[in-house]
Amino acid sequence: MSETASDGRRKRSYNPEGTRRRLLDVAAEAFQSRGYQATGMHELMREAGVTGGALYHHFPTKKALGLAVIRDRVAAEVAETWIEPVRTAPDALDGIAGVFSRIAEGLRRRGAVSGCPLNNLVLELALADPAFRQAMEAVFDAWRAAIAARLRTDQEAGRLAVADADELAAFIVAAYSGAMAQAKARQEAAPLEACARQLMRCLEGLRTGA
Amino acid sequence: MSETASDGRRKRSYNPEGTRRRLLDVAAEAFQSRGYQATGMHELMREAGVTGGALYHHFPTKKALGLAVIRDRVAAEVAETWIEPVRTAPDALDGIAGVFSRIAEGLRRRGAVSGCPLNNLVLELALADPAFRQAMEAVFDAWRAAIAARLRTDQEAGRLAVADADELAAFIVAAYSGAMAQAKARQEAAPLEACARQLMRCLEGLRTGA
Repeated sequence: MSETASDGRRKRSYNPEGTRRRLLDVAAEAFQSRGYQATGMHELMREAGVTGGALYHHFPTKKALGLAVIRDRVAAEVAETWIEPVRTAPDALDGIAGVFSRIAEGLRRRGAVSGCPLNNLVLELALADPAFRQAMEAVFDAWRAAIAARLRTDQEAGRLAVADADELAAFIVAAYSGAMAQAKARQEAAPLEACARQLMRCLEGLRTGA
Repeated sequence: MSETASDGRRKRSYNPEGTRRRLLDVAAEAFQSRGYQATGMHELMREAGVTGGALYHHFPTKKALGLAVIRDRVAAEVAETWIEPVRTAPDALDGIAGVFSRIAEGLRRRGAVSGCPLNNLVLELALADPAFRQAMEAVFDAWRAAIAARLRTDQEAGRLAVADADELAAFIVAAYSGAMAQAKARQEAAPLEACARQLMRCLEGLRTGA
């Protein structure tokens, strides 16, 4: 699919992969800020600067575009902000604390809280369509599984005593998601930071010898 | 405003309070299941069986209707499911555990998860309009304040050792909200129950003598 101009300039008509990426960028941004239902395909065409033919070539329906946003963009954002940092941290708890503080820092820098991309779409779309629901549940699954795996590694190394790593991972994801909703309602990072302190207080109690 | 027929039958044209209530019922349901943006005023008129004149008499704009749903319906639901049970429970922690288990029980009975009414609207509307954001933040404030007050009562009675009741209350609300989002994505009560177990494990550690 990928076909980029040799001189690096954007060649719209010969760069289907670039068109697809631009459509996903614009759609991901619009679905987060305005919502999926409130965003029209015509607006997206205009904002992405693509023709109807190009849009419908890549995404024959709005639903196909919604699913691609979930599978390509929302999943990638969860992987980048949560899964990779927790997987590669020297310690599960430090990794989790680090994710919260980096995200809070990002909110303060931007001065606005658009919220968790996955939770935003779940609350709007989980009831709208079973395909959306399944795609979003798959992102939650990957997120929880990565945290649970990291908790188990620490447990096996004798650093943590965890009764049920899957449940604890679901709880960590829940605390984060709910804290982001409060941060969004206040348009401030403070609720996220408060919840992070309380969560880490719980989790520190699981360190062996704590 | 209230004017009900003496024989108890609905007298549409002479029952402005009943009309207002019916509009709020229909709007609250539609905003939760389809979303605020995706719901049209004409649909609401039809579903509530009221004329345009009656609708615009009570709610001159869709925004006025949205604010009334938040202030009258969403606030009342948080008060009924969370604030009152926690306030009147013999013990804060038992009160909180009871709320989670009653809500999980309700989800299992209905076999569907529409999610937390406040969080659903926050994620859709917090960025849409400052008046919506403030109205929703006021509901979060009342919710957190009620839990914090209950935690303080238990602390003063020597039953709990809480470092920061306001932060802990925000964390409890966050854990609940995030757990409901996962329950909505899975359309099952299980994630709510898993998170409740993990939360109560944290909170039980705060009992004095625990």
